[in-house]
Amino acid sequence: MKLVVIGGDAAGMSAASQARKRLGPDDLSIVVFERGHYTSYSACGIPYWIGGAVEEKQKLIARTPEEHRKNAIEVRLRHEVVGIDLDRREVVAHDLAGGGEVREPFDHLVYATGASPFAPEWARVRDAGVFGVQTLDDGEAIHSWLDRSPTPRRAVVIGGGYIGVEMAEAMVLRGLEVTLLEKSPQPMGKTVDPEMGALVQKAMRSLGIEVRTDAHVEGLETADGRVRGVVTPDGTLPADIVVLGLGVRPNSALALESSLPVGPTGGVITDLRMRVEGVEGVWAAGDCVESRHLLTGRPVHVPLGTHANKQGRVAGINIGGGYATFPGLIGTAVTKVCDLEVARTGLTSKEARAAGFAFVTASVDSTSRAGYYPGAEMMTIKLIAEKRTGVLLGAQIVGRAEAAKRIDALAVATWNRMTVEEMTSLDLSYAPPFAPVWDPVLIAARKATEAVHASL
Amino acid sequence: MKLVVIGGDAAGMSAASQARKRLGPDDLSIVVFERGHYTSYSACGIPYWIGGAVEEKQKLIARTPEEHRKNAIEVRLRHEVVGIDLDRREVVAHDLAGGGEVREPFDHLVYATGASPFAPEWARVRDAGVFGVQTLDDGEAIHSWLDRSPTPRRAVVIGGGYIGVEMAEAMVLRGLEVTLLEKSPQPMGKTVDPEMGALVQKAMRSLGIEVRTDAHVEGLETADGRVRGVVTPDGTLPADIVVLGLGVRPNSALALESSLPVGPTGGVITDLRMRVEGVEGVWAAGDCVESRHLLTGRPVHVPLGTHANKQGRVAGINIGGGYATFPGLIGTAVTKVCDLEVARTGLTSKEARAAGFAFVTASVDSTSRAGYYPGAEMMTIKLIAEKRTGVLLGAQIVGRAEAAKRIDALAVATWNRMTVEEMTSLDLSYAPPFAPVWDPVLIAARKATEAVHASL
Repeated sequence: MKLVVIGGDAAGMSAASQARKRLGPDDLSIVVFERGHYTSYSACGIPYWIGGAVEEKQKLIARTPEEHRKNAIEVRLRHEVVGIDLDRREVVAHDLAGGGEVREPFDHLVYATGASPFAPEWARVRDAGVFGVQTLDDGEAIHSWLDRSPTPRRAVVIGGGYIGVEMAEAMVLRGLEVTLLEKSPQPMGKTVDPEMGALVQKAMRSLGIEVRTDAHVEGLETADGRVRGVVTPDGTLPADIVVLGLGVRPNSALALESSLPVGPTGGVITDLRMRVEGVEGVWAAGDCVESRHLLTGRPVHVPLGTHANKQGRVAGINIGGGYATFPGLIGTAVTKVCDLEVARTGLTSKEARAAGFAFVTASVDSTSRAGYYPGAEMMTIKLIAEKRTGVLLGAQIVGRAEAAKRIDALAVATWNRMTVEEMTSLDLSYAPPFAPVWDPVLIAARKATEAVHASL
Repeated sequence: MKLVVIGGDAAGMSAASQARKRLGPDDLSIVVFERGHYTSYSACGIPYWIGGAVEEKQKLIARTPEEHRKNAIEVRLRHEVVGIDLDRREVVAHDLAGGGEVREPFDHLVYATGASPFAPEWARVRDAGVFGVQTLDDGEAIHSWLDRSPTPRRAVVIGGGYIGVEMAEAMVLRGLEVTLLEKSPQPMGKTVDPEMGALVQKAMRSLGIEVRTDAHVEGLETADGRVRGVVTPDGTLPADIVVLGLGVRPNSALALESSLPVGPTGGVITDLRMRVEGVEGVWAAGDCVESRHLLTGRPVHVPLGTHANKQGRVAGINIGGGYATFPGLIGTAVTKVCDLEVARTGLTSKEARAAGFAFVTASVDSTSRAGYYPGAEMMTIKLIAEKRTGVLLGAQIVGRAEAAKRIDALAVATWNRMTVEEMTSLDLSYAPPFAPVWDPVLIAARKATEAVHASL
């Protein structure tokens, strides 16, 4: 039996490894096509490598092609799959390095092509100092550009989501003057509610990042094949390097051409076991698929390494004859801006409204440790609870050290459809070095319970 | 209407404050009798004040009697309630400072007498440098003894639970030579499984604490009214100060005398609303009550500030005409030894066995942050899951910075009776500064799932 995997990063290689764990080389041969130069790397780590917190690129690579080969997984780097023939059950790949075309038959296929940074028409320039950040090859391009470039002094980051915010900080750490352009009224507008985003903006400014909100980009100014500026209605902003943080889109063009089902988010549609819906023996996982949001029931595209790894693992277990499912997600995410930690789970106010929920919110300020214990830091927690039922719909945290990981307790509460009133009884850990006697999560639950009662 | 509260710390004052929040002074007068000198303080903070991390005693006090009085709560310090007359609905108190007896009628009574350190017959000596640690008055006695004593050089801590471990560290920080005597084979034997306790022992030894396990204490050696040593079968251990960490017992003698129901744990029995079972208008909360363990269904006595605050709040809301319940607890706890963090929730192996569960366990070692991210620290997570069903029964964590608070996500999972298999899908937060792409909690859930499958 043969398994072919398209895409050698988190999802694809997790699938391959899990299948291999269950079936030896005599029962299953595995071939992976990877367009780039690397396998099994942490794309999420790229900003930290560029910023210098991570010293070597190699540290971001969990497993090299050689290591996979030792595990009897054949990896073909620099091979781009350009066709899937479902009738003949084979894929067609271009050898990007050597040239030529390869055909590879499969019994099982894992579609794990990932996602690509969204680039407007004007941003589709090559070798001009304009970069998206998605693959390790992308990261390498930025890293070497910064190393090579004699005077990389002014960076403009377009888009204030995770990647934009993380890359802006990385550029500051590399000594550049950084401007971040965000079209909405505050950075991380899709991630957290406006007043939480305002805290992020403040932290970015204190890092020396110029944050321009409500900003529109009309195009780039280039000269001698290099970017020189970003054109906005307010004039042209000088730029030696431009980083795109406008989100990513699932790489589903190949799926569409092959008549694999693609959903409204642009991601490939799978069932709970990560089998492509309705197509026997074809699986999909990672940034190229859409998932079910467990609170709204709607399809969502959430390109994060944690989901890619889970989905790849689930696909691999099922391919290997086991049973595992990926039921969906609830939108948990976390990031860091300088020493400001930002986390969320469930739905933001905007998302809850869009889904049709009526809800109340409650925000509290408290400390990470007992107020009298050294190192206690302030944090803000906001909860969103359904009107009447009081079911927790979402939570957001902005704070300093030891704040953000509290989102996990809230994520488990959200996952289990807890009411904020039941949450006030939760037996969370308490000792002065770790929390006030009422953990901020409990204080928030109390205040949200009052809001729910007041809404009755 | 009059509310009388016996005990002015966490539980009693929370009850008083919540009742006051709902009913003004015209509708409810509130009198609190407190045996000691302080109200609303953090008993859990005492070791940190003694050790010096917290500079002033005042910082441990959340609300002084004066502040409560401003809230129309009358506090009578140094008053010990010695009788409850349920027929006449009044309490009898001794004025410890002024002498004499006070009678106070009540409509509602809150019994919040707390707990007292267990002291064997031989330890019941006064003014000899032998101390329990429960009230702020206790803490003050130790603190001033250390300040006054010319050569406090050798401390012996008897008992290796939370208080013992925390006090041992505090004594080291005060420059004493410290020996900890623990009767079981490792410290924190009631808190965590043996192999986790062994890690605590190692950390204590690296702090310079001499840890003697399987140790038995036969008595004290005293001279000139001061302790000189602790007598063990292996000889007498020199000691200038002895700290008792042998656990605490609910102060329920007064309840028993007054025919209030007291359960098998020695704690007062209440219903979900913290009303003393079967006694109208009498409530109890805090370290003097027993609670229901939500996993075993059995009564347990867990004297922790977090429960005391919750229970007091619940009693106060109900007294004030609202509705709130304290459903029970699941045994979550956390502490710190030097930079070692120790946390638990649910049942230990021993507790699960005693409750009659058949179970599997899984332990994993992983890192607090992505392995390549600066500051990543190792941690061990152990999960205990019911055989066949895979329901999470308990979790333990031992690690360094950012390890222990992960117990909260596990506590919420335990609270919701999640299976370890469902937990593998949990949408926990991920970014390189906060977790590896598989959070240690998820890795542990995966391994526990395998153990459950293997047990089928």
